[in-house]
Amino acid sequence: MTRHYNFCAGPAALPATVLERAREELLDYRGRGLSVMEMSHRAEEYLAIAEQAEADLRELLAIPANYRVLFTQGGATLQFAAVPYNLLGAGGTANFLYTGIWGKKAIGEARHLFGSAHIAASSEESGHSAVPRPSDIALSADAAYLHYTANETIGGLEFDYIPEAVRPDGSEVPLVCDMSSSILSGPLDVSRFGVIYAGAQKNIGPAGLVVVIVRDDLLERARPDMPSLFGYKALSDAGSMINTPATYSWYLAGLVFQWLKEDIGGLAAMDAINARKAEKLYAAIDGSGLYANPIVLRNRSRMNVPFVLADDRLDKPFLAEAEAAGLLNLQGHRSVGGMRASLYNAVPEEAVDALIAFMADFEQRRG
Amino acid sequence: MTRHYNFCAGPAALPATVLERAREELLDYRGRGLSVMEMSHRAEEYLAIAEQAEADLRELLAIPANYRVLFTQGGATLQFAAVPYNLLGAGGTANFLYTGIWGKKAIGEARHLFGSAHIAASSEESGHSAVPRPSDIALSADAAYLHYTANETIGGLEFDYIPEAVRPDGSEVPLVCDMSSSILSGPLDVSRFGVIYAGAQKNIGPAGLVVVIVRDDLLERARPDMPSLFGYKALSDAGSMINTPATYSWYLAGLVFQWLKEDIGGLAAMDAINARKAEKLYAAIDGSGLYANPIVLRNRSRMNVPFVLADDRLDKPFLAEAEAAGLLNLQGHRSVGGMRASLYNAVPEEAVDALIAFMADFEQRRG
Repeated sequence: MTRHYNFCAGPAALPATVLERAREELLDYRGRGLSVMEMSHRAEEYLAIAEQAEADLRELLAIPANYRVLFTQGGATLQFAAVPYNLLGAGGTANFLYTGIWGKKAIGEARHLFGSAHIAASSEESGHSAVPRPSDIALSADAAYLHYTANETIGGLEFDYIPEAVRPDGSEVPLVCDMSSSILSGPLDVSRFGVIYAGAQKNIGPAGLVVVIVRDDLLERARPDMPSLFGYKALSDAGSMINTPATYSWYLAGLVFQWLKEDIGGLAAMDAINARKAEKLYAAIDGSGLYANPIVLRNRSRMNVPFVLADDRLDKPFLAEAEAAGLLNLQGHRSVGGMRASLYNAVPEEAVDALIAFMADFEQRRG
Repeated sequence: MTRHYNFCAGPAALPATVLERAREELLDYRGRGLSVMEMSHRAEEYLAIAEQAEADLRELLAIPANYRVLFTQGGATLQFAAVPYNLLGAGGTANFLYTGIWGKKAIGEARHLFGSAHIAASSEESGHSAVPRPSDIALSADAAYLHYTANETIGGLEFDYIPEAVRPDGSEVPLVCDMSSSILSGPLDVSRFGVIYAGAQKNIGPAGLVVVIVRDDLLERARPDMPSLFGYKALSDAGSMINTPATYSWYLAGLVFQWLKEDIGGLAAMDAINARKAEKLYAAIDGSGLYANPIVLRNRSRMNVPFVLADDRLDKPFLAEAEAAGLLNLQGHRSVGGMRASLYNAVPEEAVDALIAFMADFEQRRG
C-alpha cells in the first residue's frame, strides 16, 4: 500500500489514522457483527456514534448550548437555498459580502429564489485579492441577515476578521457564514454567528455531508413554502433524522473529530500547525522567481494556496513531475487555472515540506 | 471478525464481498496512493468510477438511451419535493396512489409546497393490506403526473403490476415511482416510467445517495422557482456534479452493481433468489400458529416481511433471543410495532433459512 501526499481542494485528504480505523471496523463494528453502513439510524449503537460525533464537535469548537448542530445532506450548495428559506420568513433582504466564486453562487441562489440580494461589500474591484475592510460594509436598511464566505476555496482569499452584521439604523442582524473550507482549522468564537454551515469534504469528512450550526432563536424565521428537508427547526427537532441521514459519513466525521481531539490535541494545536504549514509555503512562493500568489498578505488563505508559474508553458511539466513525485492534485480550479495547494488539517506538515522541496528543485531545473 | 445476519429495513445489509473490496481499497485505491474518498470528483480516475457505476446500472436495468441517470443527495424524501418542482412547471395537479406511510409523506410534501394533490386511488380502507386494482384508479382531469410507491417498506405492501397513468380524457401522463425499497430486486421495464427514484440505503448502497432515472422529454417541465440543486436538467447537464456529489457512496453503489452483475448474474437471477427467500418465509409464517402477516397474497412485499406474534408479550423475548442468535434488526417500524424481516438483495438465502429455523424453534418453546 502506498499513500501519496494529496493537496486536493475537496474532496480532500483524510487523516490516515481515520482511514485505518474505518478499515478496521468496516465489516464488523466493534464485534456487533455488522458495518456502521448497515446499521439502522434509529439503532442505539448508531445513535451513540452520532451523538458522540456531535459532542466532540461541540467540544472542539466550544459551541454554546443555545446553538443546534445539524448533520444534513446536499453540500454547501443546498445551504445556498436553505439559508434564505430559513431566515427570510419575516421578509427583508439577504445581504452578502462578495469575495469570490462561492459567494457569487450563494448570491445567485438567493436572487434566483427570492428575486433580490444586497451586496453589502465586494472585493471584485481588487480582483478578489483583498477582502472588504469593515468600514466598507454597508447593509441594506431591510437586511434580514449578512452572509459571507470565510475562505474562498478557489481564489485562496480568507477573512482575517469576523464582520459585524449591523443595519444602517444600528440594529444587529444574524451573521451567516459558509465555512466549508476553513471550519476546524483553528479555534472559533461561534457566539458571533447566527448560522455557520460547512460542506464536510474539506476538514470534516467525506463528501455528501454538511454540518449546520444554528443559534436557536433563528429556528422560527422560516418561510412557510420551504421544502421540508431544508428546515433547521424540523431537522433540529428530529435530531437531523427527518429521514435517513448520511450515516456512514457522519460516523467518519466523528472519527475525524476524535483525531482532532486525541491525535492533534484540539484546535489551538491544529491552528499552530496550520499556521506553520501556510507560512512556509507562502515564504517559498514569495522567495522564488518562478512562483507567485496575488493575494494581499493579511487575506491569504491558510487552507488553499493558489499560485501561478511565471511561464504557464511550465504548468504541465510541473503537474506531471509533481504527480510522479507523489504530490497529487496540485492543479488549480478549472475556472482559474494555475496551481493550488490545499493544506487542510489532514495534510501533514511533511507534505508541505515535500512540496516546497519539489518546487525549489523544479525552479532550479526549469525556472 | 463476526458477520451476523442483518434484516434491517434500511440502512440495510450490504454484500460482504462489496465491503471486503471497499476495505481492501480504503487507504489506497488500486495503487493510486489515496482513498476514493479523497479523490476530486473531477479527477479522471474518479470519473471512471462514476461512469462505470452508471453503465453497470444501465446494463442491469436495461435503461433505454432516452433516460438520464442521476446520482444525487437527500434521499427519497428530498425527491418528494423535487418531483413536483420538476414536473409541475406547466401547471396541473400531482396525482397519487396512496398505499402507506411513504406515499403519505410524498403526498404531504406536494400539498405543503403546492397546495393540492389528488388521490387517484387509496388502499386506506383495507388498512393498506391490498393495493388498489387498476379499475380503481381515477386521475384528475388536470393530472400532471401519477406518483406511486412500488413497495411500502413499513407496511410490507408491494404492487403486483405497473399502473397506467391516464387522465379521464384518455391522455397519458408521466408515471413516477418511488422505488427505494424494491429497485434492483428483479428485472424492470423502465420504459413504462417517466421518473423512477430510489434512496440507496436498501438495494443500492449506503445512505446519503439517491438514484433518479428520468425520461429526457421531462427535463423541460420544471417550475422556475425551484432550488437549483433539485433540477433534473441541471443535474443531468452537469453529470450529477452541480456540486460535489456523495463520491464515496456512489463508488460503493458501483461495487454493488458489479456484485449484482458478476457474483449474482444479473437481475433475473436476483429475482429468482428473492422469490425463493420471500416464499419460504411467508410459508413459514402462514404455516405457524404464532406468526401472522396481514397482506393479501398478491401484494405481499418480497423485500419487507412484517409479521406479528399472536401474543405481543412475546415480542421482547423474540427480539432478544433472535439477536443472541445473530439475527439482527427484526423489530418492526416504531410506528407500527411487531416484527419485520427485510430480505433485500444482500440478505443471503441462508439468513432466511436461519430466521425460519429460529422462528420455528421459538414457537415450539414459547408459542
